Amino acid sequence: MSRWAPNAQNRLQHAAMELYADQGFENTTVAEIAERAGLTERTFFRYFADKREVLFAGAAQLQSSLVEAMNGVPPEEPPMRAVARTFESLGPFFEDYRAGAQLRQAVINSSPELQERELIKLASLAATLANALQERGASDTVATLASEAGVLVFRVAFDAWVQPDNTADLTNAIRDAFSQLKDVTAAK
Amino acid sequence: MSRWAPNAQNRLQHAAMELYADQGFENTTVAEIAERAGLTERTFFRYFADKREVLFAGAAQLQSSLVEAMNGVPPEEPPMRAVARTFESLGPFFEDYRAGAQLRQAVINSSPELQERELIKLASLAATLANALQERGASDTVATLASEAGVLVFRVAFDAWVQPDNTADLTNAIRDAFSQLKDVTAAK
Repeated sequence: MSRWAPNAQNRLQHAAMELYADQGFENTTVAEIAERAGLTERTFFRYFADKREVLFAGAAQLQSSLVEAMNGVPPEEPPMRAVARTFESLGPFFEDYRAGAQLRQAVINSSPELQERELIKLASLAATLANALQERGASDTVATLASEAGVLVFRVAFDAWVQPDNTADLTNAIRDAFSQLKDVTAAK
Repeated sequence: MSRWAPNAQNRLQHAAMELYADQGFENTTVAEIAERAGLTERTFFRYFADKREVLFAGAAQLQSSLVEAMNGVPPEEPPMRAVARTFESLGPFFEDYRAGAQLRQAVINSSPELQERELIKLASLAATLANALQERGASDTVATLASEAGVLVFRVAFDAWVQPDNTADLTNAIRDAFSQLKDVTAAK
């Protein structure tokens, strides 16, 4: 087991996902994950704080992709349209990762602790987007409403898209969910 | 210290809030709370699972008040209007409790752990409202969008209202925030 194992992080993620899917998240130990990946526990902890964080390692990348996407939206676009463009731009990325996303979702759904963690990560994502909207000139309230509404729409679209039998396109699902939110709030 | 102390739950809540405000949530122990209330730790644990739950003891009552309020909204009202009526009906209840709500909010804001707990309680509230909307005939997606948007609006209004220097009426603040969400989503 080399100290500089190639692709150690990926191998650990793969091994963890297989074990979580096979024997359950609760029943899997870091020692088992490291062993399956052919690495040491020490190496595991170089990449992940604990076995839970393996499932959320993509959150930071997702966050920076979203901010980058929003920075690419023309400044004259209103906040909600900027948020919509931002989430729609994620579609192709997730399409490439559909099987992995389905597997991950099944693990998350199996554990209330993981569902809570997911909720907290999404709230942090919304706060980051709200900051980006304020930098574009939105008021505090408008930035919060638009970013949180965006995360809500993304969640609704993603939850449907990630179902094992779903074959829809994620970008279209996000667009549809934005339209539905608009219709729902208009009928107030 | 009588086994059947009158108002034991209220006394414990009062004592806990005073201690959290004075010396911080982290630094306060259950033993101190019980002592200040003139009760035993055993009595504390008869009412609360831990010192955190003192701050969330109202969540179950809030949840049933909301469901009751929604059941009072005529069935022909569209989902978002039913949610808006439901939250607006809470205004007078919170007005009577403004000082307590401000104190509680300061404690919540002091601790990331408590903020996470609040987030999880609000998500559970949204899920309960979504169920109530489905019982009124809303689709799964519409029920989720309307209930989560309602909780978002309530949070935005409540966060402004609970500021120490705020003197606005909560019911009006909720109405305004619903209008703002409608405007924000319409400009998409």
